[in-house]
Amino acid sequence: MLKEFLVSTKNRYQLIDITEKVEEIIRESKIKEGICLIFTPHSTAGIILTENENGLKEDWLSFFKKLTSGIDFLHNQIDDNADSHILSGLLGQEKVLAIQDGELIRGPWQQIFLVEFDGPRNRKVIVKTIGGIDTKKI
Amino acid sequence: MLKEFLVSTKNRYQLIDITEKVEEIIRESKIKEGICLIFTPHSTAGIILTENENGLKEDWLSFFKKLTSGIDFLHNQIDDNADSHILSGLLGQEKVLAIQDGELIRGPWQQIFLVEFDGPRNRKVIVKTIGGIDTKKI
Amino acid sequence: MLKEFLVSTKNRYQLIDITEKVEEIIRESKIKEGICLIFTPHSTAGIILTENENGLKEDWLSFFKKLTSGIDFLHNQIDDNADSHILSGLLGQEKVLAIQDGELIRGPWQQIFLVEFDGPRNRKVIVKTIGGIDTKKI
Repeated sequence: MLKEFLVSTKNRYQLIDITEKVEEIIRESKIKEGICLIFTPHSTAGIILTENENGLKEDWLSFFKKLTSGIDFLHNQIDDNADSHILSGLLGQEKVLAIQDGELIRGPWQQIFLVEFDGPRNRKVIVKTIGGIDTKKI
Repeated sequence: MLKEFLVSTKNRYQLIDITEKVEEIIRESKIKEGICLIFTPHSTAGIILTENENGLKEDWLSFFKKLTSGIDFLHNQIDDNADSHILSGLLGQEKVLAIQDGELIRGPWQQIFLVEFDGPRNRKVIVKTIGGIDTKKI
Repeated sequence: MLKEFLVSTKNRYQLIDITEKVEEIIRESKIKEGICLIFTPHSTAGIILTENENGLKEDWLSFFKKLTSGIDFLHNQIDDNADSHILSGLLGQEKVLAIQDGELIRGPWQQIFLVEFDGPRNRKVIVKTIGGIDTKKI
C-alpha cells in the first residue's frame, strides 16, 4: 500500500509533527504486521524521530545553523540553499518503522517529524507499507 | 517475525556492540531471504554500523561532544539532555539490512552498535524481519 | 532479488552518482511494487540522496571536512582514517526507497550517491528488493 499527503510549511527551517497523519494511514491500510517507509521526495527536507517539545524544536534549529555556519558554499551562486541540501542529505529523507498488531512501533517520545530546510513550501510525504507473509494463510 | 532484547548501558555516552545478539535472532528466525529492521524505541539513543575498535569508539564520543558543544539548549531548562535528543535524531534510531541465505549482509568492519546518549539506562532493541516472496512456492 | 555492482572511486573523498545503475537493476528485476534497499558493505563509505550539481558536490566535501576538523582522533594511531569511519557511520551506509508501478519513487533532485570517505578504492553496492504481497494473486 502506498499513500501520500501534503504538508504546508511556514518558515525556512521548521519541524512539523506528522505522527497523527502517518498513524491514520497505517490504521486505514488495515495492515497487521510488516514495515512502513515514511519518505519525502525532496532534497531540501528530511524526516526524523524526536520528542515534540517546544524548546527542543528550537534547539534543533540552533543545531542546524551551527552545523552549516562558516562555510562559503559554491551552490549558493546558483540557488541560495546549499545549507538546505546538506542538512536534508545528512538527516536523510526517510525512516523505516515496524508495524505489529496493526500499530506502528515507536517509543512514547519518538514523534515523526517532517523537517523543512527551505520553506515555506508544500511538501509531499509518502507512506509505503509492506506486509509480512502470513505463512499460515498461504 | 519481531523479537526484542534489552541492553543495560553504564555511561552517559556509550557504544555497545549488539551484532552477536542481532545475528542470533536472525538465525533463530530461520528466515532465508528478506530484510531486517534493527530499531531502538527511544529518542536519546541511536543505531549505527561502525568498526569495533577501542580508539574509534572513543573518537565517536569526542565527535559527539564537538557536534553539540557551544549551543545554549532550551530543552535543558526542562530536562538536561537536549544533546542526547539531537544526537539520537541525527544518527537515527534504526538500520535496515538485507538477509540472504539465512545471513545478515554486512561488511567485516560493520558491527551493529546501540549508541547510548543519556545513560546509564536499560534500552530496548527491536529486530523485525520481513521475508521475500518465494514465488516458486506460491 | 539481490544484485550487486562495483564502483571504482578516484579520490579520498568523492560523491559518485549511482542512480542510473540502481534504476537499471530495478527495471531488470521486473518488480512492480515493493521496497528497495541500497546498501554499501563498508565502514568508510556512505549512501545519500542529494542533487547532482557540481558546486553542491564540492560543498559536501567542505562540510565533511568542517565536521571532523580539530579532533585528535585515537584511531589514527592504528589507521589514518578515523574521519572516514565517523562520516560513514554518521551518514549511514544504506537507503530504503519505495517501488511503485515498476519505478523507484524519488524526487527529481534526489539522485542516489555513493560517498567515498577513504578512496581511491573499489566499493561494492548491494540492491535488495522486496515485493509487496499482491493479495489478488494469492
